[in-house]
Amino acid sequence: MAFSPKILYEPMRHSLLARGKRVCPILCIAACELVGGNESTAMPAACAVEMIHTMSLIHDDLPCMDNDDMRRGKPSNHKVYGENVALLAGDALIAFAFEHIASATNGVPPDKIVRVITELAKASGPEGVSAGQVLDIISTGASDISLGELELIHVLKSTKLIEASLVIGAILGGGSDEDVEQLKKFGKCMGLLYQVVDDILDITQSSEELGKTAGKDVMTGKTTYPKLMGLEKSREFAEELNTEAKEHLSHFDPEKAAPLISLVNFCVYRHK
Amino acid sequence: MAFSPKILYEPMRHSLLARGKRVCPILCIAACELVGGNESTAMPAACAVEMIHTMSLIHDDLPCMDNDDMRRGKPSNHKVYGENVALLAGDALIAFAFEHIASATNGVPPDKIVRVITELAKASGPEGVSAGQVLDIISTGASDISLGELELIHVLKSTKLIEASLVIGAILGGGSDEDVEQLKKFGKCMGLLYQVVDDILDITQSSEELGKTAGKDVMTGKTTYPKLMGLEKSREFAEELNTEAKEHLSHFDPEKAAPLISLVNFCVYRHK
Repeated sequence: MAFSPKILYEPMRHSLLARGKRVCPILCIAACELVGGNESTAMPAACAVEMIHTMSLIHDDLPCMDNDDMRRGKPSNHKVYGENVALLAGDALIAFAFEHIASATNGVPPDKIVRVITELAKASGPEGVSAGQVLDIISTGASDISLGELELIHVLKSTKLIEASLVIGAILGGGSDEDVEQLKKFGKCMGLLYQVVDDILDITQSSEELGKTAGKDVMTGKTTYPKLMGLEKSREFAEELNTEAKEHLSHFDPEKAAPLISLVNFCVYRHK
Repeated sequence: MAFSPKILYEPMRHSLLARGKRVCPILCIAACELVGGNESTAMPAACAVEMIHTMSLIHDDLPCMDNDDMRRGKPSNHKVYGENVALLAGDALIAFAFEHIASATNGVPPDKIVRVITELAKASGPEGVSAGQVLDIISTGASDISLGELELIHVLKSTKLIEASLVIGAILGGGSDEDVEQLKKFGKCMGLLYQVVDDILDITQSSEELGKTAGKDVMTGKTTYPKLMGLEKSREFAEELNTEAKEHLSHFDPEKAAPLISLVNFCVYRHK
């Protein structure tokens, strides 16, 4: 790598531009459009939520964390650039997420930008993604994790960022407090739903169908919904969350809510 | 540690509240007061710059980086909480820095808060602290680092955050563009000065006096000012920076600039 102040851009791009599902940025833009805003208004924030998500993946893959060699179909960041650069590329992505929102968001009153930054920071920081990652580490291999504790891990580790993506989109799009509130509740259902389905697929699909090693949760002793409530009750829980998620969308014009409804269906009926 | 969403607060506090010199927050508050603002206006931002600085220390101390066991006279973060928690405590401090500015700054128009967040993010991210840390790693053990490259490392790794601390304080205090510009130039001198003195102290003081491992630069083959220009020329360079720093302060009322002048003197004449 050349000795330049831009030295981190390549490692940052390696992970950020790798093929991910882009769930958070899609939710951010969908929420903005749902309340009447334009895609372009939410785009810097949508990129920022993906930066935060990507940062958590880079750091999660490090040897001192999950020690994963592959991510998004590519060698993980530290496998290509070394642990130290991967660590710093993650750090840089956090700061750049906030810089990008603050400097690239157009046509939005600054008090809303400040609110958006607060929401993203809350979802990312000490009581968000980072805390979820710590609790996830503590729970791995533990035999006495309760359902409440399992939910807390998922809420912090992924649901809060999903909620924030929607809330941010709605704020930038000019949504009302009630719009924001309903989308936040929808986000919580959506985040948990995504995780329950993930846990179910791990034990019901073959490795071939999943495109990754099936049965990995059981093998590694991970606490999952099927482990705690059984497969049938997990399916019922997914169905409840599906219904509840859609109820929160009933607050909006059904035609405009169609993209988010499709996203929920994608979450529930996916096979991988 | 208890299974709680607040699980990261203790590891964050371990490093943040350890006895540091608080150079960045002091500069932030001094700049705010110099241009006529109140301490309380700059306090959340002052705490935030210290969070960013602390994060960089926690991550710098990790085994995949400098592998340091001591920091601020205490065991380094990963020595107490493990590498994974130290990594995440650092991540959380970055996000919390932005949250704190965005949510706790009072009596400042939101467009200025957005500008302050942009300045802090730029100093922290891909072309700031994180990039400086990468270049620092690359340069370690290399025998062909030029003086220009060494300066680039320090500008990115520490000077930009010092500049940003002053700029942020001046913006929050209602300073003019000229005030901000002079304080930025002052910050660059101050940042380099700090580093030159740090390099000198590393080879002239004991670990006990420093509160961190002494002689480490030589041991690890780090490129430093004394290594490139010798101890005497380094001392002369420090003296030049000292003079230039004070020249930039001549733009301000000497009585009001007294705290910053004292800080420069502290930097030059410190023993740790």
